[in-house]
Amino acid sequence: MRVLILGGDGYLGWPTAMDLSSAGHDVVVVDNYLRRRIAEATDSDALMVAPSLSERAQIFKGVSGHEIDVRIGDLSDSDIIFGIVRAFMPDTIVHYAEQPSAPYSMRGFSEARETFQNNLDVTFNCIWAVKELAPDCQIVKLGTMGEYGTPDIDIEEGWIDIEHKGRKDRFLYPRAAGSLYHTTKVLDTDLLWFYVRTYGIRVTDLMQGPVYGISTEGADLDEKLCPNFHYDDIFGTLVNRFLVQAVAGIPLTVYGQGGQTRGYLNLRDTLQCVRLATENPADAGELRIFNQLTETFCVNEVADRIKAVGDSIGLDVSIQPIQNPRKEKEEHYYNPVHSGLIDLGLEPTYMTDDVIAAMLERVISNKERIVTRRIMPRVRWN
Amino acid sequence: MRVLILGGDGYLGWPTAMDLSSAGHDVVVVDNYLRRRIAEATDSDALMVAPSLSERAQIFKGVSGHEIDVRIGDLSDSDIIFGIVRAFMPDTIVHYAEQPSAPYSMRGFSEARETFQNNLDVTFNCIWAVKELAPDCQIVKLGTMGEYGTPDIDIEEGWIDIEHKGRKDRFLYPRAAGSLYHTTKVLDTDLLWFYVRTYGIRVTDLMQGPVYGISTEGADLDEKLCPNFHYDDIFGTLVNRFLVQAVAGIPLTVYGQGGQTRGYLNLRDTLQCVRLATENPADAGELRIFNQLTETFCVNEVADRIKAVGDSIGLDVSIQPIQNPRKEKEEHYYNPVHSGLIDLGLEPTYMTDDVIAAMLERVISNKERIVTRRIMPRVRWN
Repeated sequence: MRVLILGGDGYLGWPTAMDLSSAGHDVVVVDNYLRRRIAEATDSDALMVAPSLSERAQIFKGVSGHEIDVRIGDLSDSDIIFGIVRAFMPDTIVHYAEQPSAPYSMRGFSEARETFQNNLDVTFNCIWAVKELAPDCQIVKLGTMGEYGTPDIDIEEGWIDIEHKGRKDRFLYPRAAGSLYHTTKVLDTDLLWFYVRTYGIRVTDLMQGPVYGISTEGADLDEKLCPNFHYDDIFGTLVNRFLVQAVAGIPLTVYGQGGQTRGYLNLRDTLQCVRLATENPADAGELRIFNQLTETFCVNEVADRIKAVGDSIGLDVSIQPIQNPRKEKEEHYYNPVHSGLIDLGLEPTYMTDDVIAAMLERVISNKERIVTRRIMPRVRWN
Repeated sequence: MRVLILGGDGYLGWPTAMDLSSAGHDVVVVDNYLRRRIAEATDSDALMVAPSLSERAQIFKGVSGHEIDVRIGDLSDSDIIFGIVRAFMPDTIVHYAEQPSAPYSMRGFSEARETFQNNLDVTFNCIWAVKELAPDCQIVKLGTMGEYGTPDIDIEEGWIDIEHKGRKDRFLYPRAAGSLYHTTKVLDTDLLWFYVRTYGIRVTDLMQGPVYGISTEGADLDEKLCPNFHYDDIFGTLVNRFLVQAVAGIPLTVYGQGGQTRGYLNLRDTLQCVRLATENPADAGELRIFNQLTETFCVNEVADRIKAVGDSIGLDVSIQPIQNPRKEKEEHYYNPVHSGLIDLGLEPTYMTDDVIAAMLERVISNKERIVTRRIMPRVRWN
């Protein structure tokens, strides 16, 4: 298949490119390095240095024999994406090209506006490029479990049947996200659903939980093919941040009471899910939604597990609750359905002690690059 | 109160400005004449010529003694709205500043993008101007009943209690709109709800049905104060279009089977509702949603009523179903709750024969200005 990956420089975008290319697909990646510029501007560089996309594609070709075509361009400019889609005529577009940091989106007006306009405009342009130029192409869109927030009822996979005053209908599951970044994904979903039901385009929207991990088959071929591993307060996700804190010998900082429960998944499983969605496309006129997670933990459980494994390999790990910089429930019900991707063939990689130990070892080998001032929260919701 | 009206040149914006000014409020209106430019570009001029906002404010001052302050500017430029809010410090912002035509939003990529970016950016800037500069100011936002679409269950006023697998929670009522224009209002609602619950701003979101009418207390003071009365396929709403067709002696064009049911209200009631919302603000941290309509009709009923009244005053009115240019259900369940504004004091102006006759007479006095080529649908959804 011909697969176009939007946001191919990201934590997920680059490993996805290697994975789909290794699977025999014809892959083009596009990025404008927005995340790199924000990381530089906010002193939030990743743990390992990532060469440019072109350099990584060259290294990957050398070690694997697979070619990845790289384009640098801003997808919020419709001419760029229309031009690429017209020339490449993809079977699938994997859309990761969004500003992905919740704290950055909550920092102030200019960061909020940048997030809002970039994320919405890229989705809008992507939809129109497909609708006008490649109507049979599937969009595989990365949403987030954060779209749902933490409702007091079970979270279904995207849709809910409502019985009300003796009548019934099926609706998009109501959403209420906890940051502007997450809210842009809610708006994306609304927009995709409008264009799916009106023009019959095909979309898979993956409601993904927080991802953790460094190792993938492609990334393990060469140190320089490593994903952008962030541990800072801007781009770092919970597990990755805790791993770095454990290695740096500073306490794992639990925000508030630590009862916040989310659905997690290993980076390797993100690749599985995106490949499964790509190779088993949604029908024309279908907005197919999967909840992309493999297991749920509260923050305290994640901290306890990393502490236990860290201590067992000789680290001295402590846990320190701090004031929660976010506005979120710290104790709540959380029961998301997540059977759709399993049904499609996902084989989960659970967060076992071995998996945690391997991640810690990898961070230990980069310990000298940890910059601890990047870890504590610098953005507060209020 | 100090009231800032965004989109003050519109069919609803200008009459609202006169109404709130007459009620003793201190009123500033802003507009960038986007609708006028689109009307000119699409050959969709209104029935009566509307002088510029400044001219109308001057005429209104002459006949009423009330002053309306006029600013011309593009509110999608944050500097403009931040500057006005900082200087005026409104108690209420009435936000009408959106591209309001569903067909225009469905015309092609550039019209869709213009609608999408204008509507979302103005709402975003409005929220931030309030949050940063006037956090106690209420935003009175014009949404649309079209946000809900035509679900097979009763439409509640913005919120719904869902019982699911033995548990309960309250959610924003699920939305599924029928055009990109209506979808931008869905996205507005999501965005407002995020900022309300996160920062405690106060918002009233008015889910308004199609409005009809020409006469208001202010507009009746001078012919030149008349609202922009559109009957074309771009900006004309159903009732106003049928009135013009009846007077022009061309058939009332029913789209498809004509079973499409919507909640209508008289322009005079829009003014009542906006004034009630302004003078009885939402609480801090409250997203208060009202369904703004007074009665429901299907298209065939509207056509039959206008035909009956038209025939009775000597017009020879016929009805002609045509192929539906839109994608919508032509027979469906429709039962919206709309008690909130009544509870607040709304006294409905129903679409009686007298009301229809008065509107027809007003159109008859402008009959020579009707341009019939503007009436038939020029935009198809597919």
